Amino acid sequence: MDHPIFRNAPWKLLETELDLDVLKHCESLFALSNGHFGWRGNLDEGEPHGLPGTYLNGVYELRPLPYAEAGYGYPDSGETVINVTNGKVIRLLVDDEPFDVRYGKLNTHERELDLRDGVLRRRAEWESPAGRTVRVRSTRLVSLTQRSIAAVCFEVEAVDGPARVVLQSELIANEELPPAAADPRAAAALSSPLEGDLHEVFDDQVTMVHTVRNSRIRVAAAMDHTVEGPEGTRGTSVSNPDLGRYTVASVLKPGETLRLVKFVAYGWSATRSLPAVRDQVDAALSAVRQTGWEGLLAEQRACLDGFWECADVEIEGDPAIQQAVRFALFHLFQSGVRAEQRAIPAKGLTGSGYDGHAFWDTETFVHQVLTYTAPYAVSNALRWRHSTLTDARERAEQLGLAGAAFPWRTISGQECSGYWPAGTAAFHINADIADAVLRYQRATHDALFEREAGLELLVSTARLWCSLGHFDGAGQFRIEGVTGPDEYSALADNNLYTNLMAQQNLSAAADAAQRDPETADQLDVTPEEADRWRAAAKGMFIPYDESRGVHPQAEGFTEHEFWDFENTKPDQYPLLLNFPYFQLYRKQVIKQADLVLALHLRGDAFDARDKARGFEYCEPLTVRDSSLSACSQAVIAAEVGHLRLAYDYLAEAALMDIDNLEENTADGLHLAALAGSWIALVAGFGGMRHREDGLLFAPRLPGGWERLCFRLLLDGRVLTVEVREDQATYSLARDRTLGAQGDPEASQAVSLELRHHDRRLTVAAGESVSAPIPQPVPHPAPKQPPGREPRHR
Amino acid sequence: MDHPIFRNAPWKLLETELDLDVLKHCESLFALSNGHFGWRGNLDEGEPHGLPGTYLNGVYELRPLPYAEAGYGYPDSGETVINVTNGKVIRLLVDDEPFDVRYGKLNTHERELDLRDGVLRRRAEWESPAGRTVRVRSTRLVSLTQRSIAAVCFEVEAVDGPARVVLQSELIANEELPPAAADPRAAAALSSPLEGDLHEVFDDQVTMVHTVRNSRIRVAAAMDHTVEGPEGTRGTSVSNPDLGRYTVASVLKPGETLRLVKFVAYGWSATRSLPAVRDQVDAALSAVRQTGWEGLLAEQRACLDGFWECADVEIEGDPAIQQAVRFALFHLFQSGVRAEQRAIPAKGLTGSGYDGHAFWDTETFVHQVLTYTAPYAVSNALRWRHSTLTDARERAEQLGLAGAAFPWRTISGQECSGYWPAGTAAFHINADIADAVLRYQRATHDALFEREAGLELLVSTARLWCSLGHFDGAGQFRIEGVTGPDEYSALADNNLYTNLMAQQNLSAAADAAQRDPETADQLDVTPEEADRWRAAAKGMFIPYDESRGVHPQAEGFTEHEFWDFENTKPDQYPLLLNFPYFQLYRKQVIKQADLVLALHLRGDAFDARDKARGFEYCEPLTVRDSSLSACSQAVIAAEVGHLRLAYDYLAEAALMDIDNLEENTADGLHLAALAGSWIALVAGFGGMRHREDGLLFAPRLPGGWERLCFRLLLDGRVLTVEVREDQATYSLARDRTLGAQGDPEASQAVSLELRHHDRRLTVAAGESVSAPIPQPVPHPAPKQPPGREPRHR
Repeated sequence: MDHPIFRNAPWKLLETELDLDVLKHCESLFALSNGHFGWRGNLDEGEPHGLPGTYLNGVYELRPLPYAEAGYGYPDSGETVINVTNGKVIRLLVDDEPFDVRYGKLNTHERELDLRDGVLRRRAEWESPAGRTVRVRSTRLVSLTQRSIAAVCFEVEAVDGPARVVLQSELIANEELPPAAADPRAAAALSSPLEGDLHEVFDDQVTMVHTVRNSRIRVAAAMDHTVEGPEGTRGTSVSNPDLGRYTVASVLKPGETLRLVKFVAYGWSATRSLPAVRDQVDAALSAVRQTGWEGLLAEQRACLDGFWECADVEIEGDPAIQQAVRFALFHLFQSGVRAEQRAIPAKGLTGSGYDGHAFWDTETFVHQVLTYTAPYAVSNALRWRHSTLTDARERAEQLGLAGAAFPWRTISGQECSGYWPAGTAAFHINADIADAVLRYQRATHDALFEREAGLELLVSTARLWCSLGHFDGAGQFRIEGVTGPDEYSALADNNLYTNLMAQQNLSAAADAAQRDPETADQLDVTPEEADRWRAAAKGMFIPYDESRGVHPQAEGFTEHEFWDFENTKPDQYPLLLNFPYFQLYRKQVIKQADLVLALHLRGDAFDARDKARGFEYCEPLTVRDSSLSACSQAVIAAEVGHLRLAYDYLAEAALMDIDNLEENTADGLHLAALAGSWIALVAGFGGMRHREDGLLFAPRLPGGWERLCFRLLLDGRVLTVEVREDQATYSLARDRTLGAQGDPEASQAVSLELRHHDRRLTVAAGESVSAPIPQPVPHPAPKQPPGREPRHR
Repeated sequence: MDHPIFRNAPWKLLETELDLDVLKHCESLFALSNGHFGWRGNLDEGEPHGLPGTYLNGVYELRPLPYAEAGYGYPDSGETVINVTNGKVIRLLVDDEPFDVRYGKLNTHERELDLRDGVLRRRAEWESPAGRTVRVRSTRLVSLTQRSIAAVCFEVEAVDGPARVVLQSELIANEELPPAAADPRAAAALSSPLEGDLHEVFDDQVTMVHTVRNSRIRVAAAMDHTVEGPEGTRGTSVSNPDLGRYTVASVLKPGETLRLVKFVAYGWSATRSLPAVRDQVDAALSAVRQTGWEGLLAEQRACLDGFWECADVEIEGDPAIQQAVRFALFHLFQSGVRAEQRAIPAKGLTGSGYDGHAFWDTETFVHQVLTYTAPYAVSNALRWRHSTLTDARERAEQLGLAGAAFPWRTISGQECSGYWPAGTAAFHINADIADAVLRYQRATHDALFEREAGLELLVSTARLWCSLGHFDGAGQFRIEGVTGPDEYSALADNNLYTNLMAQQNLSAAADAAQRDPETADQLDVTPEEADRWRAAAKGMFIPYDESRGVHPQAEGFTEHEFWDFENTKPDQYPLLLNFPYFQLYRKQVIKQADLVLALHLRGDAFDARDKARGFEYCEPLTVRDSSLSACSQAVIAAEVGHLRLAYDYLAEAALMDIDNLEENTADGLHLAALAGSWIALVAGFGGMRHREDGLLFAPRLPGGWERLCFRLLLDGRVLTVEVREDQATYSLARDRTLGAQGDPEASQAVSLELRHHDRRLTVAAGESVSAPIPQPVPHPAPKQPPGREPRHR
């Protein structure tokens, strides 16, 4: 870890002192979520804070999208995630002095995010300005098992003398937020978005209901409490439209402790009535009271034990990366486990960056991990996409296209992009969704999903591609004027990544329709239509620059002027904040892996020479101004034999947030980069590819590592891959139908076929098989733009 | 004329009844201006109105330019022309009833814009609701000789009985405007932009000074009056911050007339003090009082006589086109004659469309006409561009470029475009300015201009091109990611028009620097730099599509999918209001002449076959959703032998505003289309090209015409070209140094060399020479997109 406040620990993120300069950053790292709602890691006492944050998945406010010059089809309004009723706050007063780390003396401070227990713990010893010392311990969780519930156990102990302590446990609506940053990647600030509908008090419980001003989504929050303390400890509740408060007062002798357990429930709906939403949170509180604090802790641990059993990645040789990949897996799991047909946003529910929108990142990066570690989360996330098909079809129609055009950025499913060349035009998101469907189906053989959602997603996106491209005179299918993954190019013809992903989308839709003619018929797919998809896939134009012997990122890209890297100063990165799009788009400079991502996700379309040459061409042009880039570069670096470089890229992806490499982790975690650490390990050093034609591995350890071990859920069974320097061992667990969604027939297969480097292996259930690892031929790695080399690990 | 209220007249635009449905349209047609300020043709009595408009050239308000997603280098604020103090209003009350054409009975109504007298006359007979009939006559002018002055002579006569009449002559600030239209081509509405600084009354004079709220430009308006009427007629003046009013009351017997002459003066400054600006308008009134109404009329006529002597175009065979081209020339003259180092906006000073901004239209279209008819106006307009070089250099630097990047749209010289793909990226404006410089120099040999402004404009734009393009491996100079004239394409590589115009710009800058090494040295031009310009010009990449045998509009354009014209409904034009840019940009559909404009302005770069083939290729793709298109199509249609089609396009350009073809003449006249009528006649049917290597004509009359005669000012001498079906006659006037700006040496040349079709002719001063016209070979004209054919004439 770069920052001295963090300490390596294999199963924890540990903070050992409190540095207010990085408070906002740590609030993102210590965020808890279950995919349904999320709490940023704000201090219990509310202040100081970087950015208070309580986010409910799907709750947003509408704001007008303004244009200096309007155009047809521009969205009128955008969706912005809002900070809803804050239930985290427990204020403490010691002899009338508020516990605030900015005053008095903080003798000790420690926080730990426990990745197995699924809780955030805090321990502090504080001496008040008047000289009274107390110890504070809190444990906070957002329940992975009871999706509406968060809970805090807060304890205060008098140390050096009797103390009169007061605890105020609060629900705060319309919190004042710090002013928004000018960075376009931050969120729009909306003040007081909640209109009060109801507030009520009953014993130790307070319930509040609000409606979001313009989006008209109704939000309920409620809290209940149990208290243990010396004789005479008692609590009272009050409420007003924007505040619920439960107060408990006690006098503690040295060594005595006051303990407050706070349960918080959230519920929301755009359609249900006020009583219905209120009753929902009251019911959730009733349920959790029955479970109790200890029961909740036990459920949380059990849930995570199940996850880690199928998902853990072990590394011997780099403790920081070991910690980081588990931190990543924990947050990915949190982001999706209970999202339940809502989006997984780019920042999960850990911050308001990018307005809380979901992008292609989810399907392309986050799903890669969750498909093999928590497939039910992927099924749910894709069913969310499926549920937005009506919006996507309307958008396609508005754009003069067939099928469905999924939004570039959204919360609800409506397009919220206010800059179309980098939004609407980035049609590859539709192929990325299709790719996620295919990946999920390949890993689970979930026939119900395919019938209910998968086929329709494939068909709708295939229709889009058919209307978006056209056959030229030479019979080549061309897709023009679109924007690929690299955001430093736009509106290019025949972006290679887009064309290849569309090709896969088209073929797969035809295949899937053929497999399930009944459902296909319900979707009005005729054999003629499927033939057109196959013809478009077959004729897909794949540009190649003969003179340079390389695939260009898009047609003509390699003809463009090179960016003047020599005269670009270090403080001019990210380029987008210091140069006009005009210049970026017209020159050879790459923000993030584009061709290189195609080399990974459509590796079947290239030979080894293409890959080596493509990577070599792109490296000196790629500035990695996007957190999405490093992992793909790691994967291809490893494939073409640059293990040292792959390691550096792995580290960049893995430490993106813990080390705050892009200096905006404060706005929320970079979920795709977190996913990238797993991808770099599994697809990079593990060489894992899961293709139509089988499961491939080409494992190789980076120098200095003794062992890498990762697990993959395949049709409900765990395949463990253990890589050592000279050999890899593949072990297949017996079928325990873990995911419960695998196709029973497929998971009956008792053995698994795979390819290890150039060998075919068969792994029987309950057994292991080992194979030697061929040594790579060392050759010099390409250079990056000056000053943009990854940190050397 | 389409509309029954207009009647053809060779020297007038005549309105013979009042149709309130076209009131707003007629206000633009009847607008008066001198380039310094403009008055829309609003009714004297103020109401009803379509859009009241008084515009001072260079007076604007700033408004923030909002972006849904901001980007580096986007302008923060835009400039919007504002309606300043209205001095046109003269209200009339007849026996206490306001003269308002919506009440009572309008027995007769006639307005005429007199193109030789330079006045707008009105005659009306109105019966008040109480049954009293009066005759009203007004004559209005905006002085071409006293640039701050407008005047109105208003007469009211009692007809059928004694009438008590009151006239209220007003200055009205912060007039309430009708709500703005949603059309992006209209102006932003700003309410009450004027802050009152001063208002004062002295005898029959009222003076008011305001400051524009955000731009801090100070605006003064003053009015003075003379009255003639029966015994006892008297006037009084009052003022408040937003109103100046001079009232005169009289009792008229039948046949008696009350006559009010109103002089109005405007002055403004962003730097001068309140007393200075106030004194300026008071002084202008003193001057005009001395001239008097009759004197002002005489000056106006004399000024226009001088113009028509050098500029008139005569047509025998189509009275409507005859009228239209004179109407066009009048408005072009008005727009530029006293602009005096301020811009000539796209709509002149006739409406607030496009926010009052100037675009490339001025240099490319308006200057073509004025260079040969009123060259001093062109010199002034280019000196205005020159005066904005500091802004243009700063903009270039912000964009990472050398030299100067002139704004796509502006009032002051600051970039005001809020959509960069169709603004900033349309760099051709810089070559268009250079082209205008070259044209002006070729026509005038104005050495002083070249030294003081011309060379620096050429050098600054050449430097821009050098930094904008780059040499590829094959030694070709490429200009990538720019937007050409056709606004249905954007960010294309090697737009042919742009590359060719840049090529000319680069060569011409090198030549000019060589001609004037002293000035070049002051601009730090080294011989090495000039060599680089020549090398870039020499290596300029000119794309050609071998397989289709045609020059593409830009690299790759001919590979794109064709627009689906068959399924585009008539009410879906203009396409930009009904389809997303995304679709327009990626398909073969052309908003306005782009390649065809290159065929005209850089005709020297193409052979006859290229031109025929290029025109034939573009015609079926060109929808003419821009008023800039028809004239260029007319020019090339005529050149390649489609005279019938050229005639139709000429008519479209010529009647654009009179017939309100784009249904937005209400927002102001389309100056470039007006210029286009002259261009279609002179460059189209006259076949005139003025190139480095000489002056060419290839005249041919359209069927049904007996004669076309036009005049060109060349080095201060008038060349008259008279075209009949079988022969053309060229006559050169003796040198009278009319423009007073011609190079004395050049204009001493007693004869003029020119080419007539394939013959070389020499015309001696004071003499004529005739030559026969070869008959064209008839061949079928290409088709336009269905439903987008020009109206057949």
